[in-house]
Amino acid sequence: MTSLRIFKQVPRLLFGFNTIDRINELLPKKNNGDYYIFIIDDVHQKGTIHSRLKHASEDMIEWFPASVKEPSTLQIDNLRDKFMQARDHKLPKAIVGIGGGSTMDVAKALSVMMCNEGSASQYQGWDLVPNPGIYKIGIPTVAGSGAEASRTAVLMGKERKFGINSDHSMFDAIILDSSLIKNVPIAQRFYSGMDCYIHCVESLQGTMINELAKGNASKALELCEKVFLSDGDDDMLLTASYMGGVSIVNSEVGVCHALSYGLSLELGYRHGFANCVAFNVLDEYYGPWVDRFREMLKIHKIELPKNVCRSLDEAAMQRMVNMTLKMERPLTNALGENWKDKMTPNKIVSLYERM
Amino acid sequence: MTSLRIFKQVPRLLFGFNTIDRINELLPKKNNGDYYIFIIDDVHQKGTIHSRLKHASEDMIEWFPASVKEPSTLQIDNLRDKFMQARDHKLPKAIVGIGGGSTMDVAKALSVMMCNEGSASQYQGWDLVPNPGIYKIGIPTVAGSGAEASRTAVLMGKERKFGINSDHSMFDAIILDSSLIKNVPIAQRFYSGMDCYIHCVESLQGTMINELAKGNASKALELCEKVFLSDGDDDMLLTASYMGGVSIVNSEVGVCHALSYGLSLELGYRHGFANCVAFNVLDEYYGPWVDRFREMLKIHKIELPKNVCRSLDEAAMQRMVNMTLKMERPLTNALGENWKDKMTPNKIVSLYERM
Repeated sequence: MTSLRIFKQVPRLLFGFNTIDRINELLPKKNNGDYYIFIIDDVHQKGTIHSRLKHASEDMIEWFPASVKEPSTLQIDNLRDKFMQARDHKLPKAIVGIGGGSTMDVAKALSVMMCNEGSASQYQGWDLVPNPGIYKIGIPTVAGSGAEASRTAVLMGKERKFGINSDHSMFDAIILDSSLIKNVPIAQRFYSGMDCYIHCVESLQGTMINELAKGNASKALELCEKVFLSDGDDDMLLTASYMGGVSIVNSEVGVCHALSYGLSLELGYRHGFANCVAFNVLDEYYGPWVDRFREMLKIHKIELPKNVCRSLDEAAMQRMVNMTLKMERPLTNALGENWKDKMTPNKIVSLYERM
Repeated sequence: MTSLRIFKQVPRLLFGFNTIDRINELLPKKNNGDYYIFIIDDVHQKGTIHSRLKHASEDMIEWFPASVKEPSTLQIDNLRDKFMQARDHKLPKAIVGIGGGSTMDVAKALSVMMCNEGSASQYQGWDLVPNPGIYKIGIPTVAGSGAEASRTAVLMGKERKFGINSDHSMFDAIILDSSLIKNVPIAQRFYSGMDCYIHCVESLQGTMINELAKGNASKALELCEKVFLSDGDDDMLLTASYMGGVSIVNSEVGVCHALSYGLSLELGYRHGFANCVAFNVLDEYYGPWVDRFREMLKIHKIELPKNVCRSLDEAAMQRMVNMTLKMERPLTNALGENWKDKMTPNKIVSLYERM
């Protein structure tokens, strides 16, 4: 039995179509010299989000190249230094993250790193952040990661992919506006939605769940199925993403996430996609849900690559195994305290080889 | 279409059996001369809660007679004055409310009234409270009202029962500990649980719902049915209460609540009980759910009184009608913008007469 954390929640949120137009109601007031930082997925450079934000000339916009690869601790350190130099070490009044899970993670991590010394890589882990960060707002434009609800800012470090898990990495406010997700490309919508589906399955099948997290996870799972197997809409997808995130704050992921981090590390796979590749071989752990997942793949005409680890050398595979073995909490959640007897290095390699 | 409020949530919570023993993790640190106020339902005077709180000699305990009648604005004003005099106008560091919905409402209202001038009756309404209140923690020992999740502190005024609806009446932290609700008498457990069931039905059947509120309400409804029609446990009931409260923050109640306030006003009925009496005659609005409610009554051997308004004179009935007609938002939610054409004074009287 694990000890339960104090369960942190986003204190204020706006839900609904076009609610991004009300962002000023959530932003702290500026005084002379104050400014906001907007971190926006660069896919939106061509769209209307920029003009809808009604930002002022003193604000800073950073177009984050979220589609290139998972964000890294080095990128966060560099961003922080860049802003601090540009503004002569004056801190921003707020940071707004607009995009998918990665972009929101960047906003969270930057908020924390503007108020804590050293490199972001020092804070990867649980509750290592001493100082609160800058006031921050999260606005998903791709739904599923649950990053808008969680206390995790996941970053790729030099040797490992790991979250800054801290109450200080929670958003102070979020906007769940379905007008922002309506143009997401089908594949991306799918992979991100499956991130939600998969972490809900993992938390519901795990040992660390409680009734409150179960309430959120089971509703999120139901909504995901409605969206991807039936006729659910964008409001449902945003609700699923949020409730899935809430459930994860108070429970834990499982085997799929433990393996998918390895894929992201060595193959540079985006998180949602890596989860899909891993989940597809996990019948042994999540049987009926893997079947349903394959049904969704078929409906949405998504083809996953085969034999993805074939080009990796032994050293790379070893790093992936090590990465997986570091995921102690997810593996304990999935397999119990004696998970090491079940998830041996050989077993991990055999799972990767089936992907 | 109503404009959506910014949706406020309790930022920190503890969930689980015996989590009340961790209350110190949620309380703000004291310095010299600081004290906490504990407002506790006086039914717990005989129990173990008092000793579990590990409070210090400088703290104040107020045993609130929640079973006598609904809390009033006058009681709040008097409590505030009493504490302020006893402590020479030094404000407490935190207020903790422990009990059912009423006791938690008292804690919320007191927190607000310690930082705002005048009488609590001046703040009954929507967003009338200018100053934030004292840091407050809510701990339900009866589950169902959802008061632990909401921005409402419902009080009986001289002429009307009405909520102080304000972001400042939200708890800063809550503890959902099923060890505290295991000894609630059957009838009270039922009436309070039905408060949750009924407000979920009202919000789901209303026009002001959105997908996020729906996610919470439908899960809470499902859990209530599991608890009262099947084998659901106390953790489920606490989760239902909390999620039902969350849904109500972002939606609205309906016909039943509009009528039940009149019953509380003139007959002094406790809220959950008044809701049950009213809901039982609302087939016209909530048909299938009223049927299921009657099934629950039967299973739990609860008999509702009959012809409850028989002893009321015309003036009393008029006050009840006026109270109901003041519930504009709930009635708009239930019946649409033209609710006055449907919910006429005659119609209201005929509904009361059937109860």
